Amino acid sequence: MNINFKDIEIAYKKIKHLILKTPLVSSDFINNILDAEVYFKLENLQNTGSFKLRGATNKISTLSSDITKNGVVAYSSGNHAQAVAYAAMQKNISAKIIMPKNAPKIKIANTKKYGAHVILYDAFFENREKIGNDIKEKENRPLIKPYDDIDIISGQGTAAIEIAEDLENLSVIPDIYLCCCGGGGLIAGTSTYLRHKFPNLKSYSVEPEGFDDTKKSLENKKIIQNLPNRKSICDALLAPMPGDITFPINLKNLEGGLNVTDEQVKKTIILLSEHLKIVVEPGGAVAAAALLNSKKNFRNKKIVVMISGGNIDLELFRSL
Amino acid sequence: MNINFKDIEIAYKKIKHLILKTPLVSSDFINNILDAEVYFKLENLQNTGSFKLRGATNKISTLSSDITKNGVVAYSSGNHAQAVAYAAMQKNISAKIIMPKNAPKIKIANTKKYGAHVILYDAFFENREKIGNDIKEKENRPLIKPYDDIDIISGQGTAAIEIAEDLENLSVIPDIYLCCCGGGGLIAGTSTYLRHKFPNLKSYSVEPEGFDDTKKSLENKKIIQNLPNRKSICDALLAPMPGDITFPINLKNLEGGLNVTDEQVKKTIILLSEHLKIVVEPGGAVAAAALLNSKKNFRNKKIVVMISGGNIDLELFRSL
Repeated sequence: MNINFKDIEIAYKKIKHLILKTPLVSSDFINNILDAEVYFKLENLQNTGSFKLRGATNKISTLSSDITKNGVVAYSSGNHAQAVAYAAMQKNISAKIIMPKNAPKIKIANTKKYGAHVILYDAFFENREKIGNDIKEKENRPLIKPYDDIDIISGQGTAAIEIAEDLENLSVIPDIYLCCCGGGGLIAGTSTYLRHKFPNLKSYSVEPEGFDDTKKSLENKKIIQNLPNRKSICDALLAPMPGDITFPINLKNLEGGLNVTDEQVKKTIILLSEHLKIVVEPGGAVAAAALLNSKKNFRNKKIVVMISGGNIDLELFRSL
Repeated sequence: MNINFKDIEIAYKKIKHLILKTPLVSSDFINNILDAEVYFKLENLQNTGSFKLRGATNKISTLSSDITKNGVVAYSSGNHAQAVAYAAMQKNISAKIIMPKNAPKIKIANTKKYGAHVILYDAFFENREKIGNDIKEKENRPLIKPYDDIDIISGQGTAAIEIAEDLENLSVIPDIYLCCCGGGGLIAGTSTYLRHKFPNLKSYSVEPEGFDDTKKSLENKKIIQNLPNRKSICDALLAPMPGDITFPINLKNLEGGLNVTDEQVKKTIILLSEHLKIVVEPGGAVAAAALLNSKKNFRNKKIVVMISGGNIDLELFRSL
């Protein structure tokens, strides 16, 4: 299945009025540390607190009211959950969402607040895809997948239309794009559009150590799973392997993959709150963590860094 | 002394390349709570963490190198301190800054980091204006006042040019403008420009309880001081009385004044971090606190809220 910049432009026309245009910001403090020009895309400021609203809104807008008359179903570690609940609420569609028991409380609470029926499962002993598919069949609700769906990828890609617009207004041609990667939907969509606009751009996925399946898959040019029983605070980025649809797109678009430790992520969350004055969740901070810790030479480069979400439990935020 | 929108446009031309254009953002969550359309201007994302950089940069740009050859001097509770230090550093000018001993640590540390020589004084027993004037005389350094200066007011007013630009792009005509008020420089400058652009706009100053000198002065149409020995966590807004230059401008421009309690400010800081994903200092949050707590009817209104700064000590932020 293929995707090109036009799919993303079509998606943007459909969802533009239902999402926020989020800001692209920079900070002299961070530019001076790195001797580089860094532009942060603040999708943590998106409604529902993450970019996921773009894809969910686009997917739901493609479904006829006949198809959604019994509601929709989705599984998600939390940000896609909130996004589907919110997008469904905006269209008066019932939503059932399957979430891991140990998801951040803020994510479970918000998903309920947006009117969804939340089903908690045990991520160690149960299979969320099976639960989702069962509900889909029994209740005749279309399943809104978190990333491996061309409408989801196109929706997430719309963040790049705004990035390109803002960079063009500043007459900036970026050299490097750093973006978090769970299942790979956001980076597949955004890198497709950014490559179209800036053909010399080098894009890199960023993942937590132990969950760098996309990095390994890119190196081996085939889908490789994460080893079992790993842990990371980046709850949004724990997909077991790249998607069948996202991976070929990322293999074509990306220069390679980077990874970061939980410790680097924690320090980055603090730095972003002290110096960029924003609240970022662990998964939303990995690209910035790579920027600050990678051995790559970013000097004198123009770099776009995706801040993908801000749904962090206040207790965790405080404990940092 | 008078000011009009052209002074602010001239200032913007001078400082535009030395400051950040900060974003104007909204949040469905907050709009839904209030049943209103709210636009937050994020000056906490400005370089140095507050709007003060605008005025300081403008003031310093008006001084010839002959006048600044011995450096500059300023007194400030912290945000103006950082701004003067930063603006001076950008022009290789030496800066001496007088700050209260009990200023937030982040503000003292940053002012030093920007290369300024910091002189700490005891706000209960010493007079910062006297210390400043002594240094001005002895060392032949021009004093960069925090608010009661037409170039400072024009510089702070440039935030409104960006607000108006962004609102016009959204085809929004605002009804209400809420802005924090210490000495009154920011609200004097911004309300001047916004009134010019949106003649029906109603602007209100917002102050902490006990430091609502502008509110009282507006009600009495003359300058009234705060009572002594009051306390507030809003360290940026503790000026004892409106300025001789700022007050007549605010008396002309403002509909009235509002005040908020420290408790309301604390809750607002938490809400802004949970739902707008931004880090705001107490003084920067008062306008949002008034929005959420005022008995004024904001329903169905289009409201611009100034978030003026984000320099909060992490220990305080954590303790909330």
